[in-house]
Amino acid sequence: MTASLPADVISRLKSVLGEGGWSEDPERIAPKLVEWRDRWVGRTAFLALPKSTAEVAAVVGVCAEARQPITVQGGNTGLVGGQIPQGEVLLSTERLRTIREVSPLDDVITAEAGVTLSEIHAAAAQVRRRFPLGLASEGSATVGGFVSTNAGGTQVLRYGMTRNLVLGLEAVLPNGEVWNGLKHLRKDNTGYDLKQLLIGAEGVLGVVTAAGLKLHPELASRAIAFLGVPSPDAAIELLARAKDVSGGAVEAFELMGRLGVEFTIRNIAGTRDPLAAPHPWYVLAEFATAEPGSAERAMQAFLEAGLEAGLIADAVVAQTQAQAKALWAIRENQSPAQKPEGATWKHDVAVPVSAVPAFLREADVAMRAFAPGCRIAAFGHVGDGNIHYDVLRPDGGSNEAHAARRDEGSRIVHDIVARLGGSISAEHGLGAMKTAEAARYKSTTEIEAMKAIRRALDPHRILNPRVLF
Amino acid sequence: MTASLPADVISRLKSVLGEGGWSEDPERIAPKLVEWRDRWVGRTAFLALPKSTAEVAAVVGVCAEARQPITVQGGNTGLVGGQIPQGEVLLSTERLRTIREVSPLDDVITAEAGVTLSEIHAAAAQVRRRFPLGLASEGSATVGGFVSTNAGGTQVLRYGMTRNLVLGLEAVLPNGEVWNGLKHLRKDNTGYDLKQLLIGAEGVLGVVTAAGLKLHPELASRAIAFLGVPSPDAAIELLARAKDVSGGAVEAFELMGRLGVEFTIRNIAGTRDPLAAPHPWYVLAEFATAEPGSAERAMQAFLEAGLEAGLIADAVVAQTQAQAKALWAIRENQSPAQKPEGATWKHDVAVPVSAVPAFLREADVAMRAFAPGCRIAAFGHVGDGNIHYDVLRPDGGSNEAHAARRDEGSRIVHDIVARLGGSISAEHGLGAMKTAEAARYKSTTEIEAMKAIRRALDPHRILNPRVLF
Repeated sequence: MTASLPADVISRLKSVLGEGGWSEDPERIAPKLVEWRDRWVGRTAFLALPKSTAEVAAVVGVCAEARQPITVQGGNTGLVGGQIPQGEVLLSTERLRTIREVSPLDDVITAEAGVTLSEIHAAAAQVRRRFPLGLASEGSATVGGFVSTNAGGTQVLRYGMTRNLVLGLEAVLPNGEVWNGLKHLRKDNTGYDLKQLLIGAEGVLGVVTAAGLKLHPELASRAIAFLGVPSPDAAIELLARAKDVSGGAVEAFELMGRLGVEFTIRNIAGTRDPLAAPHPWYVLAEFATAEPGSAERAMQAFLEAGLEAGLIADAVVAQTQAQAKALWAIRENQSPAQKPEGATWKHDVAVPVSAVPAFLREADVAMRAFAPGCRIAAFGHVGDGNIHYDVLRPDGGSNEAHAARRDEGSRIVHDIVARLGGSISAEHGLGAMKTAEAARYKSTTEIEAMKAIRRALDPHRILNPRVLF
Repeated sequence: MTASLPADVISRLKSVLGEGGWSEDPERIAPKLVEWRDRWVGRTAFLALPKSTAEVAAVVGVCAEARQPITVQGGNTGLVGGQIPQGEVLLSTERLRTIREVSPLDDVITAEAGVTLSEIHAAAAQVRRRFPLGLASEGSATVGGFVSTNAGGTQVLRYGMTRNLVLGLEAVLPNGEVWNGLKHLRKDNTGYDLKQLLIGAEGVLGVVTAAGLKLHPELASRAIAFLGVPSPDAAIELLARAKDVSGGAVEAFELMGRLGVEFTIRNIAGTRDPLAAPHPWYVLAEFATAEPGSAERAMQAFLEAGLEAGLIADAVVAQTQAQAKALWAIRENQSPAQKPEGATWKHDVAVPVSAVPAFLREADVAMRAFAPGCRIAAFGHVGDGNIHYDVLRPDGGSNEAHAARRDEGSRIVHDIVARLGGSISAEHGLGAMKTAEAARYKSTTEIEAMKAIRRALDPHRILNPRVLF
């Protein structure tokens, strides 16, 4: 678990961090070396625990001078190995815990990197506002992490990715200097937007120490429906109609295949088939507006027109909070419900919304040819063209045999995605895991531009050196 | 008007551009050397008129090799001199005129740099969609320009600046390579967002040749009201209530002082005082939603509560399209109505929304002390904290004497803006005019980071060399 680091660097780090600001205790460090899916195991000899932006700057400054690589970790919820050190100094943001300001008039919360998404939601609710980023990991995911990875979630369709939800940023640049971009401004055209460059840069261009997060009004009227639809083509036609009838008030528009719904019925206790007969595809649609009753009316009009046009075969509207929760549980359990079914190849891909049906058709044909008998569970945020496309081993087949062919199978899926103008990592980022694969699909021009920018800001590649290009 | 350029560079440019792709004719070039306020006069010996992305790449490639500086020009509507050449090769995007694709299912229009904003609006309307960027110059402003300058306008409050309205980008980088980032994706976490870096970079990091623009649904229900309010403090409290009651469906929330409204009544034919008695401040508020009648109901509730709370002294709601137009004309004529009043110092500043009242108070005290008798016309997008703060000469005073003190006066205004955490250029950018002034208010860390990025992509500073840091 340990890896030796230069003694003089360690001693200087200890002196800038002070008592309680670091650890060399393997037990203290251990939880930060594994992620929740246990796919990555790391090692480090030194954990830096700065409690302020100034201390983060001091740590990065010492490392920059000594050319000592650093890996930065927030809530350790990343899925692509970016936060797991492989011998570098590990810088955790866990002690940057202050919510510095809540300003309802500016609709902004300014919070330090180690504050969790749940805490942001709670602080927003206290001033009757909403921070519309929804992640399954919200109890652990932190500001520094979801900003640095430009996190997505179910509400992107209406509110955009994290980059649309950040008003200001404070970060320590790779040279150890603090950049204070914590403005409350909605308009500021005075040079390139460094904030936007850092968002989604996975910590390689700077360590995010605090962010100003944009708040939205709470919405009193909500309508949730579960639809049986004949095809993905019908689903995307319905999406356009939903945006139109609600004036863009679509909070979620989630597509699920029949097989994934069957998995939830079979494997998740308490799940009931929401519609009388099975349908090849399902959509979970949610509208939200301010005026009481208006989301419900929009949903009613949307369903009636969709049924009449033959785009919807059957539908149920949640009449109570409990029903709404049950319908959402079917969506949220798509991934957990696969576990008892055996090995799977998972893909977090995006294509243009209009290409979702073509992607699903082409990928299915290719997978059934490549892995006869495989079971395909596709679901995701169809409103963003973001499909979680999971290919499970044949019923009763060998987990090992299926797992062994993962890379080859994924390559086929990714090639189809690329051909359709898509992305092989819609939400999760590239981290240490997907950078090489992504390089296959990017132009040299783009990769060289990214490398040039990185070299300009971090000539010795000390920040998250194994992450990105 | 002419300035000599190396003969070999000119000859190579002619050969890559071909017949009709360039001009050395002073009369053909002349209109591109002056901007509409006649504050800048430029010069160039060579106008490049590429008709395709490949030709733009060839021009930039020749210039990069020869280290020949270029100035890029779109619709020539910029207010800060960035588009006016001072001896460089002038690259106009006027022949990049194709709307490449309109995709209602993806809610995107892909258009080349020389397409005007009006043409984008028309193309969106044809598929019953809306591109919610509103600029007074929409008949001339072009895609390349409004993307490169991250244009704002009246609808930023709800839809964000241009950077929130761009899905994909194609650009020629300073080395002459084409970067194709024209994806239709709403989610793509595969490295830094080069698109966001180029948006608002004022053409110094690349020449935007085409953009994918995000469309929104048309909204059937609209309500427009003109309110007399006692103070800017009341206005920002009302803004928070407006967002709350409408669920964020506020399309515009524009503040105007009494003096500016008086100017429109006096100087713009056909303007009538919209309310029976004068009020120190006014707000023009517009709500828009999908469900017929719902914006009107939200406006009614908003006005009743505001009147009851004493935040609104009087209000009128537009009952017809003609009335709505007349109310908007008062706002749109704020600037033209000043012209007959003589010399003015204009400022396009932003502060946090919560600091708007403090800014107006402090700036007024400072201006009245510095320029006794001056007349202050303040108006703007209070929903974004963006105030157009105009200081006119005293009634009957000397235009020359007032104009002579502009820089000194503006410095005082900018210092107050900076102290309140604001921006000295909210919408217009820095161009050749405001870069030095902006440098006073930015940290060395930020300016050095911007310079490092620029050097990395354009080591010989050939693109718009006089623009930005």
